[in-house]
Amino acid sequence: MRKKDIRIIVGEKIRSLREGLGWSQEELGFESGLHRNYIGGVERGERNIAIVNLDKLAKAMGVSPRDLLP
Amino acid sequence: MRKKDIRIIVGEKIRSLREGLGWSQEELGFESGLHRNYIGGVERGERNIAIVNLDKLAKAMGVSPRDLLP
Repeated sequence: MRKKDIRIIVGEKIRSLREGLGWSQEELGFESGLHRNYIGGVERGERNIAIVNLDKLAKAMGVSPRDLLP
Repeated sequence: MRKKDIRIIVGEKIRSLREGLGWSQEELGFESGLHRNYIGGVERGERNIAIVNLDKLAKAMGVSPRDLLP
């Protein structure tokens, strides 16, 4: 059995952290400077997010970039 | 003073892990399926590497993807 795709894992981690803050995708978008539709795609595992945007999301949520990865 | 760009930090981490294994960029390229020139660009902080390729490099070096990030 193959390990779950890293895009799915990262999406779940971001969603979990965002929901832990009680934020909507729109609020995370506002705080990070990224579009809420893009964030939706990342959370659903549809986007191969790169480190510069991971850094923006991590900063917005007050965590380290490594906390968004498996 | 601004924190060092995440691309620089990630590049340094990858180079450090690779050198710790005693591997050339070409060897890491062979093990990960990525081109040695691409790996060179990542290590120099010139590339905004995304999670699918981070996963390939991490697997090749026997670490977790989070170990490549600050």
